[in-house]
Amino acid sequence: MSHHNLLSSTGAAAPPALALIELAERLDGLLVANGVNPIIRGIASITEAGPDDITFLSDAKGQKKHIDELATSRAAAVIAPAGVAELPLPSIRFAQPYIGLSRALNFFHPAYQPPSGIHPTAFVDERASVHPTACIGPHAVVEAGADIGANVVLDGQVFVGRGAVIGVSTHFHPQVKLLHGCRVGARSIVHSGAVIGSDGFGFTRVAEGHVKIPQIGIVEIGDDVEIGANVTIDRAAMGKTFIGNGTKIDNLVHIAHNCVIGRNCLIIAQVGISGSTIIEDGVTLAGQSGTVGHVRIGRGAVVAARGVVTEDVASGAVVSGFPLKPHTEEKRIMAALRRLPDLVKTVRDLERRLDGEIKATSEPGDS
Amino acid sequence: MSHHNLLSSTGAAAPPALALIELAERLDGLLVANGVNPIIRGIASITEAGPDDITFLSDAKGQKKHIDELATSRAAAVIAPAGVAELPLPSIRFAQPYIGLSRALNFFHPAYQPPSGIHPTAFVDERASVHPTACIGPHAVVEAGADIGANVVLDGQVFVGRGAVIGVSTHFHPQVKLLHGCRVGARSIVHSGAVIGSDGFGFTRVAEGHVKIPQIGIVEIGDDVEIGANVTIDRAAMGKTFIGNGTKIDNLVHIAHNCVIGRNCLIIAQVGISGSTIIEDGVTLAGQSGTVGHVRIGRGAVVAARGVVTEDVASGAVVSGFPLKPHTEEKRIMAALRRLPDLVKTVRDLERRLDGEIKATSEPGDS
Amino acid sequence: MSHHNLLSSTGAAAPPALALIELAERLDGLLVANGVNPIIRGIASITEAGPDDITFLSDAKGQKKHIDELATSRAAAVIAPAGVAELPLPSIRFAQPYIGLSRALNFFHPAYQPPSGIHPTAFVDERASVHPTACIGPHAVVEAGADIGANVVLDGQVFVGRGAVIGVSTHFHPQVKLLHGCRVGARSIVHSGAVIGSDGFGFTRVAEGHVKIPQIGIVEIGDDVEIGANVTIDRAAMGKTFIGNGTKIDNLVHIAHNCVIGRNCLIIAQVGISGSTIIEDGVTLAGQSGTVGHVRIGRGAVVAARGVVTEDVASGAVVSGFPLKPHTEEKRIMAALRRLPDLVKTVRDLERRLDGEIKATSEPGDS
Repeated sequence: MSHHNLLSSTGAAAPPALALIELAERLDGLLVANGVNPIIRGIASITEAGPDDITFLSDAKGQKKHIDELATSRAAAVIAPAGVAELPLPSIRFAQPYIGLSRALNFFHPAYQPPSGIHPTAFVDERASVHPTACIGPHAVVEAGADIGANVVLDGQVFVGRGAVIGVSTHFHPQVKLLHGCRVGARSIVHSGAVIGSDGFGFTRVAEGHVKIPQIGIVEIGDDVEIGANVTIDRAAMGKTFIGNGTKIDNLVHIAHNCVIGRNCLIIAQVGISGSTIIEDGVTLAGQSGTVGHVRIGRGAVVAARGVVTEDVASGAVVSGFPLKPHTEEKRIMAALRRLPDLVKTVRDLERRLDGEIKATSEPGDS
Repeated sequence: MSHHNLLSSTGAAAPPALALIELAERLDGLLVANGVNPIIRGIASITEAGPDDITFLSDAKGQKKHIDELATSRAAAVIAPAGVAELPLPSIRFAQPYIGLSRALNFFHPAYQPPSGIHPTAFVDERASVHPTACIGPHAVVEAGADIGANVVLDGQVFVGRGAVIGVSTHFHPQVKLLHGCRVGARSIVHSGAVIGSDGFGFTRVAEGHVKIPQIGIVEIGDDVEIGANVTIDRAAMGKTFIGNGTKIDNLVHIAHNCVIGRNCLIIAQVGISGSTIIEDGVTLAGQSGTVGHVRIGRGAVVAARGVVTEDVASGAVVSGFPLKPHTEEKRIMAALRRLPDLVKTVRDLERRLDGEIKATSEPGDS
Repeated sequence: MSHHNLLSSTGAAAPPALALIELAERLDGLLVANGVNPIIRGIASITEAGPDDITFLSDAKGQKKHIDELATSRAAAVIAPAGVAELPLPSIRFAQPYIGLSRALNFFHPAYQPPSGIHPTAFVDERASVHPTACIGPHAVVEAGADIGANVVLDGQVFVGRGAVIGVSTHFHPQVKLLHGCRVGARSIVHSGAVIGSDGFGFTRVAEGHVKIPQIGIVEIGDDVEIGANVTIDRAAMGKTFIGNGTKIDNLVHIAHNCVIGRNCLIIAQVGISGSTIIEDGVTLAGQSGTVGHVRIGRGAVVAARGVVTEDVASGAVVSGFPLKPHTEEKRIMAALRRLPDLVKTVRDLERRLDGEIKATSEPGDS
């Protein structure tokens, strides 16, 4: 992701104020300020920042352009990479500026914390267990045997099915569905409309059509996982569909039954993962990519956008295309493709010329 | 879209009746009826229309076939393009027949208008503002600080978050989610299950995994926008994800954080738009296409189905493929591809023949 | 689908127990047990089964490996294909082992049957008809004129619109939306978040933008249909979008207005079907495939993963690619593509050599 083109924030409550020196300490960054110490009251983009704001300089491409913009920015200071030399504004430097940005955003825009307790319009079955510090929002449903941990926040109209379990400090956005028997760990975030625990697509063909194979397994999701809006994760046929700690999943991703996904993976929007796929730790699946199922993707591998994983992928490999190839090969092929129409012509000419040659070279023998 | 293969409507309430002459006036079309003036009580397809119905002849491909069908249709009259000459039925002519169709459908099937007011099962926070002419459906949730304009219709189980704003005469279908701080303009339509304002996918990598970058921005949607079922539109990291007036978005589309989309764009089903993409006015993104993010698509450009926008696109360009190419080039390449397997053989033969030639042509020198 | 890598089930209630001989009778399979008759109390995967469990041997690829695993499994018995000879465990044999698996899962894990009646927190309009044996879950909404058949189960927060009809024994999972006037047949299953009856994407271009063409049709779904999580099915412009008996649809599929889909089709995850597409009986659309609309796919045809149906498909054809080709041709092209970069070089060399030849062969004539 990137933050150029940032506009001023519309954060609801007035953010706290802090002098630049104190802010640098709180964010644990390196102050480069030539003695000035403005009061910082907010954070905004280079172009939208006002005189009370700190802004942000990314280390991503386009940095040069943004350094120029800083000269005309109204911002009081800038969060910047340790690497860049002179800047026209007092700065707080970080080896990873996005870390500084993350801390500053959390400071100036602390996450909204709804009051604990069960909203009067929510339905919580008397056989469910809800920690007193949890927040159950309006029109939420929590069925029998469900177990909601400490500091969990269920926003409005969330559904938690029979026997489902949610770990401490996890947050479900409005209308998330966690279906019967499924489990989510601690400090995870699930965005609106996501479905966790729908039936796997399991049928067997018979003369008259297809017979459903009951899907009796569950989905188990680890700690510090983030799941995007309208994602669907199917329960296992038997056993569990598993998502490891720290994995982040973007919107509209489909994860089929019995997939086992490791830790700290990144799965970008609209990816489709077929049944029983095994994805090791630290794998990245770029947007709109997919897998054929029953394949294994090795630790740290990267599947490029639109790639289709048609076979096992080695650890650390960077692959793309359909069928799957090393990304460098796919790029060579894509480049060569643009020359294909001319190549067809060239080969036709070569044939003609060679036919002519044969005639020519055969004539001497005639005389 | 097209309307051949129309079946008879199942409209609930009995539609109003009108003589053909009055109907032509009301629809503002040109009557061609040779003095006949049947009573029209409904609208239906050529094959399904009855003697009280008016039917519709499109100007899309297949018109010839449908003109033949008109001869055997039981319809009393037909809405038709101004262009076609003789028709076997009295007709109301339009330069753009779909405009006539749209008016006729609105006349015979006026949109259902639910009663104003807040349904007793809805939860509306006392700190929210709801216009008295608005309709808040059963089990809807409207949180503190939200502002619901005049004649807004929120169907059952809609969620409107803290401080969200909805303009006059906008309609949210069941279980739409408009999350905190986000805004939708006037006369817009959002279909079931759409999520407006989920967090952008923003993380920065650290040794132990990924740190979340808080997404503190909003989504701002203009007037006369239509958003399809189960669409997801992420809030900006900072500032706003923006969708301009009159843009129409089909089902299951993903729009990432900080995208800026212009006016009157058409975004077809299952398109994925990556972060910070800028799309100018009047752009069409065909089905299942995508963008890599941080690209700009110029005014009026068209991205063909499955295209991936890997670079900026000039205004008015028609592009397709992955990586992106002019559509005409992509089509040439696709055509050439079908000859590739033969080409491989041909080239092998050429090599053999040329090897032979060299032998042949070198022999004379031996003697 | 496949069931290798099955883990132990987490089924809630303690499953019933049965001696192997009785179990074989109940499942209508062939007992091969050399006189032993263990008590079976559950079903689990080869690697996770305990001494009271029966396990499952698929006839899919990988069978050899799983037969080896059986030797070390703690399972008491195995459901196995009739075809395989010696097995290290007593077995119940089936010509189609997945049929045996399905029966065993239904026996040991009977579907949860919620109590009949309308939950006190549900809203059911007094003008709706709900069969006394139906179950309406918490915070469900059933609008005026809707008709809910016998033994229907609507889970929590389901939405059923004005005049919608649901046939006997159909099950809607949490937050399914069946919109006004739409119909679902008997014994169908609709998974969480699915939207049935959203407006088709119908607009006509005018100078100022796009005019909406009212979508006044419905969606009609047959018997024994299964619809995945967060699927969207648009209502017809006029008439009906139709899905035939026994068709199974996976998650996040998009079906546009006026599509007519036959019986016993399989539509895999993330497929997009454009408007007015006609799909005959028994068609399979593999994952992430799509259609351009107004095409017909013949009975029993198969569209491979990512295929785009750009033209009509003959009955029984197996097609893939974009544009669409016979699957065998597409595979040949994909194979040839990997040789394309070398081919470009080879052709360049041939040109050079031929240029050399011409020089060489022309020299003799000089003397």
